[in-house]
Amino acid sequence: MDFIKDYALFLEKEIQNIKFPSSPANLYDPLSYFLTLGGKRMRPMATLIAGDLFGASLEKTKFAALAVELFHNFSLIHDDIMDKAPLRRGKITVHEKWNENIAILSGDVLFVKAYELLSKNDCNHLMPLLACFNRTAVEVCEGQQLDMDFEQREEVTLDEYINMIRLKTSVLLGAAFEMGAIIAEASEENIQNIYSFGVNLGIAFQIQDDLLDLYGESDKVGKQKGGDILADKKTILSILAKSAASEAQKTELINLKYESNNELKIKRSLELFETLNVKENCTLVMNEYYSKALKSVEDINVNNSKDKLLTLFQILKQRQY
Amino acid sequence: MDFIKDYALFLEKEIQNIKFPSSPANLYDPLSYFLTLGGKRMRPMATLIAGDLFGASLEKTKFAALAVELFHNFSLIHDDIMDKAPLRRGKITVHEKWNENIAILSGDVLFVKAYELLSKNDCNHLMPLLACFNRTAVEVCEGQQLDMDFEQREEVTLDEYINMIRLKTSVLLGAAFEMGAIIAEASEENIQNIYSFGVNLGIAFQIQDDLLDLYGESDKVGKQKGGDILADKKTILSILAKSAASEAQKTELINLKYESNNELKIKRSLELFETLNVKENCTLVMNEYYSKALKSVEDINVNNSKDKLLTLFQILKQRQY
Repeated sequence: MDFIKDYALFLEKEIQNIKFPSSPANLYDPLSYFLTLGGKRMRPMATLIAGDLFGASLEKTKFAALAVELFHNFSLIHDDIMDKAPLRRGKITVHEKWNENIAILSGDVLFVKAYELLSKNDCNHLMPLLACFNRTAVEVCEGQQLDMDFEQREEVTLDEYINMIRLKTSVLLGAAFEMGAIIAEASEENIQNIYSFGVNLGIAFQIQDDLLDLYGESDKVGKQKGGDILADKKTILSILAKSAASEAQKTELINLKYESNNELKIKRSLELFETLNVKENCTLVMNEYYSKALKSVEDINVNNSKDKLLTLFQILKQRQY
Repeated sequence: MDFIKDYALFLEKEIQNIKFPSSPANLYDPLSYFLTLGGKRMRPMATLIAGDLFGASLEKTKFAALAVELFHNFSLIHDDIMDKAPLRRGKITVHEKWNENIAILSGDVLFVKAYELLSKNDCNHLMPLLACFNRTAVEVCEGQQLDMDFEQREEVTLDEYINMIRLKTSVLLGAAFEMGAIIAEASEENIQNIYSFGVNLGIAFQIQDDLLDLYGESDKVGKQKGGDILADKKTILSILAKSAASEAQKTELINLKYESNNELKIKRSLELFETLNVKENCTLVMNEYYSKALKSVEDINVNNSKDKLLTLFQILKQRQY
């Protein structure tokens, strides 16, 4: 587990080394602010681990790792505008602290900075890295659009939901691993396997996020339990509930939208979810993706130890909030 | 002049060939819509002309040309949100036709598409192309931020204004020429000269834009004369006027903001501008940049004819609205 701390320290130092000009302040101050809000740095960590697995040093993979992290932060800044989110990682969002125009534009410039970092890679790696990065960036935008589209729809199927989270969040984790493997010049098959590992892990992680919002030890971090229910958000829980519900139960689930008593709203949702086996069914789906991820690890053909990959897997799987 | 028509046709065909997926419709429909709004296609034309001058075929330079055009359109979609512009090229803007979230996100994906097209270049050209493209994209964002910052300020100097339009609009024209020259493997000196040509031409063009808004034959295109004055926009005209004005004239210029009679507002502005020699002084500054641009053309050391470069120059310089 020590490598996790080492990698995290390495990344924080590298992120702090990304210097922005002082002017125009309204363009660059939001970026310095946002990048210091922290976060798990799971994606750049993935790039470093994949590189290490196939024999590339941290120094060689760091630019791609940082590019992924900057892209992720760019997408968060823009998503926060679209979601009208007041807080990110417990701190005030860019569009709230400054304004929407500044959040749009500083997001844009952060996106370019991601490409700048990516462009620091050797010429022979740059083509496949760009292909991976561009493809993924498009998919992330598609996922965000589907997410917004789904909020306007009454019915969303499980497959549609999984596809949405795959695009919105999981392909970036897959791409983060893939880019480390590309730089380490892993075989095509290994690149594909570590990408699949990341995507399936990402999907499981996102499902777990939905589960933890209602069933996690969220009081530990001061987050409100059932925040998704109170925000009437479409999650895998609400989708599984609806798909298993009788007509009467479905009607009640839909009408809970209008319940203004928060405690009652969560209590009644929990009761319905229990009757409908939502937690168990959701856990089954989640574990299916964790298993797929592990299968991809097995499929990776390499002499080096896969321990770091498996450690990251365990850390993500075991979180309780 | 015939080559202009040929190049324009070539570009329109290539732009029409850029196909977007059909789903998510809310992400891709705005892009198909926006790209068919037309425009002068001056920037991609610049890339083709620069490539041709130094011996690269249209087929070789077209991806960079299209990347520049897509980047330009991306920046327009986002700028229109920030400026709350209802119309673009006489048609309803993306954020008005759909909504702001869709305009942010489809802008983002168009930005990626620009990088996708750029990535189609040969590996040996890709590094310098990306360096040029990234640097320019950052500068364009800086220019847009300065433009927004200036709207909040009472005083802006001529130098500050020129620097803002250089970043916001001119460096992209410079980069468009530069990228054609890079692909044609022109010498470092020639690349620098054609870049300077583009930047200075772009600055002159933008100054001309400010001039034509008030003094152009804008009735020909149904545009309102003096639109910038009515919108209280900072332009080179208002900056030159203020810097030449006496205290009393300055006060009057500032107070004209509160004049609600449009006809009177423009009439009185025109009178003050005439007293203060604004049109003449502005034309002097503009011609200085046109001359700098021509000087850069002279400095280009190449056996091929520079006629196409000069034709584009003349077309831009001679427009009356």
